[in-house]
Amino acid sequence: MHDVKALIFDVFGTVVDWRSSVVGELRVLGEKHGAPTDTDWHKFAQAWRSGYMTNTRNIAAGRASGPLNVDAMHRQILDELLSSAEWASVGRLFDEDARQHLNLAWHRLDGWPDTVEGLRALKKQLIIATLSNGNVRLLVDMAKHADLPWDVIFSTELFDTFKPNPKAYLEAMRHLSLAPENCAMVAAHIFDLRAAASLGMKTVYVRRPDEDADAVKTGVGVKSKKDGGEVDCVIDSFTELATILQTQRPTD
Amino acid sequence: MHDVKALIFDVFGTVVDWRSSVVGELRVLGEKHGAPTDTDWHKFAQAWRSGYMTNTRNIAAGRASGPLNVDAMHRQILDELLSSAEWASVGRLFDEDARQHLNLAWHRLDGWPDTVEGLRALKKQLIIATLSNGNVRLLVDMAKHADLPWDVIFSTELFDTFKPNPKAYLEAMRHLSLAPENCAMVAAHIFDLRAAASLGMKTVYVRRPDEDADAVKTGVGVKSKKDGGEVDCVIDSFTELATILQTQRPTD
Repeated sequence: MHDVKALIFDVFGTVVDWRSSVVGELRVLGEKHGAPTDTDWHKFAQAWRSGYMTNTRNIAAGRASGPLNVDAMHRQILDELLSSAEWASVGRLFDEDARQHLNLAWHRLDGWPDTVEGLRALKKQLIIATLSNGNVRLLVDMAKHADLPWDVIFSTELFDTFKPNPKAYLEAMRHLSLAPENCAMVAAHIFDLRAAASLGMKTVYVRRPDEDADAVKTGVGVKSKKDGGEVDCVIDSFTELATILQTQRPTD
Repeated sequence: MHDVKALIFDVFGTVVDWRSSVVGELRVLGEKHGAPTDTDWHKFAQAWRSGYMTNTRNIAAGRASGPLNVDAMHRQILDELLSSAEWASVGRLFDEDARQHLNLAWHRLDGWPDTVEGLRALKKQLIIATLSNGNVRLLVDMAKHADLPWDVIFSTELFDTFKPNPKAYLEAMRHLSLAPENCAMVAAHIFDLRAAASLGMKTVYVRRPDEDADAVKTGVGVKSKKDGGEVDCVIDSFTELATILQTQRPTD
C-alpha cells in the first residue's frame, strides 16, 4: 500500500449504511400513509436493493440493457415491487408524491459511525474518490447530506457502464492520471475488489454489517494476502485504514 | 436567480488567479536555473495561456484536433514556446525535470482573496460545481492545494470536448439532473457565459483583474440585464454573490 496515491471508494454499503437509512424512511412513510405497523420494511428494502444489484450486474456484463441512471432504475424497481402480489397492499397506499419522495431516500443515506472521521483523516494523506454505480446527482446530494468530504466524485454514469465492468475502473484511473498500482479500491463487496484486482489495483476490504452476500455465501470471511487471502488489506473502519496508512508513511 | 439550485463555475481566472501563481513559479524556477533577472515572465505566462485558449477554442469549435487532456496540451505549448526564437535562451536552461515541474504549476494555482470564503458560503445554499477545460486530476490537485470545497468536479475531459462547445454544459446539467433555468454559470469570461445563456442557463459574470480579453476588446464592461446588458448578474466577488443569493431566499 506504500505507493497508493488515491483511494477509490465504493459507496452503497461501504461508505453509507443504506439499510438503516432506507428502512427508516420506509417506516416513517408507511406510518404516514397508514401501512400496518408490522410491515416488514427490512424485507422490502432488501428486495429493492437486490433488484438494483441484479440489474446493474446484468447491464455491466452486457446480459441486459436498462437505465444507466440509478434514480431511474430505482424508480422502475420500486414500481415493480409495489405492483407485485406481495407488496400490492402497500403499493395502493403510496401515491406518486410518496414514490417520488421515497425514491430519493437513496440520496439521503447516512454514513457508518466511522465514515466522516475516517474520510477526513484519509483526505489529508491522499486523494479520496468515489466510484459508485449511483448517479452523479445522487452522490452529490448524499455527500451534502452525510458530510462526505470527497476530493472527486466518479459515477459509472459518467462512463456509460456499471461496476464491475472494467471500463468503470479504467476510466476513473485515467482521469486521476494514475497507474493501477497507485490506486486502491475500497469496498465491502468482494466482487468489486476482484474486478479492481484483475486490473492491477490494490484492494481494501472493509467489513460492514449485513453486506456482501457473495462472501457470506462461501461461509468464510475475506482475508488479506498475508493471511492467505486475496485482498491487500482487511479493515473494520476507515479510521483504522487512516492509521494503517499513516504508519506506513512515516516520512510524509 | 430565485430558482437556481446549482452554480457551475469556470475555474482558470474565475476561481483562481492563474497569472500570479504561474508567474511566481516561473520566477522561482528561472532564478534556480540561472535565467536573467529581467526576464519578462508575465509575457511568458500570457503566451502559454494564450496558446491554451486558442487550442481549446479551436478544438471546441471542431476547427482543430489535439489533446483533450490539458496537462498534455500545456506541455505541448510549453515545449513549443521554449523552442521559439523569443524564448530559446530560457528553453536551454529548463531541462526535462524543470519542464515537468513547471507544467504542473497549473495544479497549484491559488484562489482569489474572496474565493474560499465565498465558495464555503455558497456551498451552504446550493450545489457548487466546476465546469472547466482543465483535466480532472488538475482540478483535484488544485482543490486540495487551494482548499476549494467543491460539491462536484466536472471537467470537459469527462465529456470529450472543451467549452464553449454546448455538449460540455449539457452534460454537466444532465449529470446534475437539473434543467438549464435551475443552473447558473459563473465565469470571468463573456464567451463562456454566452454559450451557457444560449442553452437557457442563468449567467453570473465576475470581474477579475486582467481577465476577459473578449470583453475588454469591446471597450465596455459587461452589464447585467437590468442595466441593459446581457448577463443575469455582475459581481466583484463570490462573497458578494453569497450575500445576493441569501437575500433572495429569505425563507430558505
